[in-house]
Amino acid sequence: MENLIVAIEWDGTGLRLIDQRLLPHQETYVVCRNVDAVVEAIRSMVVRGAPAIGITAAYGVVLAVREAWHAHGKAWRDAIEQPLARLAAARPTAVNLGWAIARMRAEFPNVGVDPAAYLELVAQQLQRENDLADEQMSAAGAELIPFGSRVLTHCNTGTLATGGTGTALGVIRAAHAAGRVEHVYACEARPWLQGARLTMWELLRSGIPSTLIVDSAAAFLMQRQPLSWVIVGADRIAANGDVANKIGTYNLAVAARAHGVKFMVAAPMSTVDPATADGTAIPVEQRAADEIRRIAGHPVAPEQADVWNPVFDITPAALIDAIVTERGVLRPPFR
Amino acid sequence: MENLIVAIEWDGTGLRLIDQRLLPHQETYVVCRNVDAVVEAIRSMVVRGAPAIGITAAYGVVLAVREAWHAHGKAWRDAIEQPLARLAAARPTAVNLGWAIARMRAEFPNVGVDPAAYLELVAQQLQRENDLADEQMSAAGAELIPFGSRVLTHCNTGTLATGGTGTALGVIRAAHAAGRVEHVYACEARPWLQGARLTMWELLRSGIPSTLIVDSAAAFLMQRQPLSWVIVGADRIAANGDVANKIGTYNLAVAARAHGVKFMVAAPMSTVDPATADGTAIPVEQRAADEIRRIAGHPVAPEQADVWNPVFDITPAALIDAIVTERGVLRPPFR
Repeated sequence: MENLIVAIEWDGTGLRLIDQRLLPHQETYVVCRNVDAVVEAIRSMVVRGAPAIGITAAYGVVLAVREAWHAHGKAWRDAIEQPLARLAAARPTAVNLGWAIARMRAEFPNVGVDPAAYLELVAQQLQRENDLADEQMSAAGAELIPFGSRVLTHCNTGTLATGGTGTALGVIRAAHAAGRVEHVYACEARPWLQGARLTMWELLRSGIPSTLIVDSAAAFLMQRQPLSWVIVGADRIAANGDVANKIGTYNLAVAARAHGVKFMVAAPMSTVDPATADGTAIPVEQRAADEIRRIAGHPVAPEQADVWNPVFDITPAALIDAIVTERGVLRPPFR
Repeated sequence: MENLIVAIEWDGTGLRLIDQRLLPHQETYVVCRNVDAVVEAIRSMVVRGAPAIGITAAYGVVLAVREAWHAHGKAWRDAIEQPLARLAAARPTAVNLGWAIARMRAEFPNVGVDPAAYLELVAQQLQRENDLADEQMSAAGAELIPFGSRVLTHCNTGTLATGGTGTALGVIRAAHAAGRVEHVYACEARPWLQGARLTMWELLRSGIPSTLIVDSAAAFLMQRQPLSWVIVGADRIAANGDVANKIGTYNLAVAARAHGVKFMVAAPMSTVDPATADGTAIPVEQRAADEIRRIAGHPVAPEQADVWNPVFDITPAALIDAIVTERGVLRPPFR
């Protein structure tokens, strides 16, 4: 089925992002015309999902260079360091953010008379590579799934998370089209509810049979229903195969192993960070307590409640059966 | 510290229940002056928690008999069958509901001139027994916990759940008073958020250091923090020691076993159902999809989303290290 969601669109002068905070009930768009608008869109989670953050950051570099070029002319290179530092710091866990900025920086020696015009082409090329990577990993991951399977996914890893067909959700889409997946269970993914709000929306749009569960029901689902795979994305993959991903991923990996359900991570190579030896070296972002104490502005816990709100967790490589990238399937041991 | 919450109070003419749907932001009370008001209070979760449901049902029987006595005089016994059937069907999973009704019925041969007056005394006695059971299991459970422990709990098992000091939360209170528990982590317990709304409120009132987490963060917490015990309540315990409790309990038991954290169930003997051989025979209540699709009336998923909303799950006896009742500690094997 046609996927009609346009999550990230460069219109030649600015970056148009679907506002993921308001989905599925409002489809509104935020247009970023300068780098600080991009920083704010990443920080406030207008856009989220590691690959989508990477693509967004690439266009953020274009905007930063454009601003610096207009203000400082040939001295643009000095003027962009501070904006790029703000961009790199917008979210700490996803490595794609730093990866995309580095990819753009690597092109600085090659820019022509108008650096922004050149870098715009580079960012568009990055986005096309990213879309292609989605297709490649979707095809490779789908082949691992037995025909007629029921699978479980977490958070959102679809078009909203990458701009393309998605990582884990791309695998699920391809597997559904091939008759390999017949039903998808989606965890709601508190606190931000990316599964309830975004994944269920994408699955309904794609006509893939799906059921929403609360996160804590995953183990009971495995006890009661035969599932073949849990399929998730990644925000950073360490050199040894440890995976940082949405909080709750590790919980699913533990439950999957206990029930003989296989565990797949689908992510582009840009998510792999060879400079990080293992999961203990990955910084885990802590977000505001009110993301848990309030839901849509409505208080659901005492205002004085202390909260631990790590938005990612670390799944050790030993619990992962396959890491699927655009270059193919990695099997343990991953190093 | 003094526990000043009055969750269930018989005032001589009716039953006053704190409305648990509105806590912690509003402390309002519902007064039930007839049995159907009690049925509705149980069904709509004004009152929840297996022991609290049992106590409430006992007073529901008093109200049913009073109504039947006033309307039918000596023919009251025939007139109460339909109301008692409605009462018994108000929630399916907690066995305490049927247990309390059976305890009240067993006294029918002993009633005097005014059956309601006699049964009122019986219900009050049941409530006192329940309060005493809380104290006994709290003391017994606390002794299992090493000094200076960090523990994790799920859902709400405190005064709101029993009318007394609580089951699992009673154990935690006693253990904190004895210096055995120094910090409590509470899962929020989607979809109804009993942990966020009720347990955090009780812990703050009792001055016990506590931190709220989303349900899916439990395994990551165990990976990062040494915990000694997960401590939960129960809605029904089968003859073989399998436990039905709030959805997410089984998930915690799986994670606890994987991390070497011990798993304690605290519940009164009224929760044990010898007539149920094992967990597969326990009916698991499914509640409305909108409990997940909406939070406090606010939509958080597409309206067309299919939902699986079991509000309890089944933890096999093999994952439980201790079942603590008012009669002492049961250790595996439980039969």
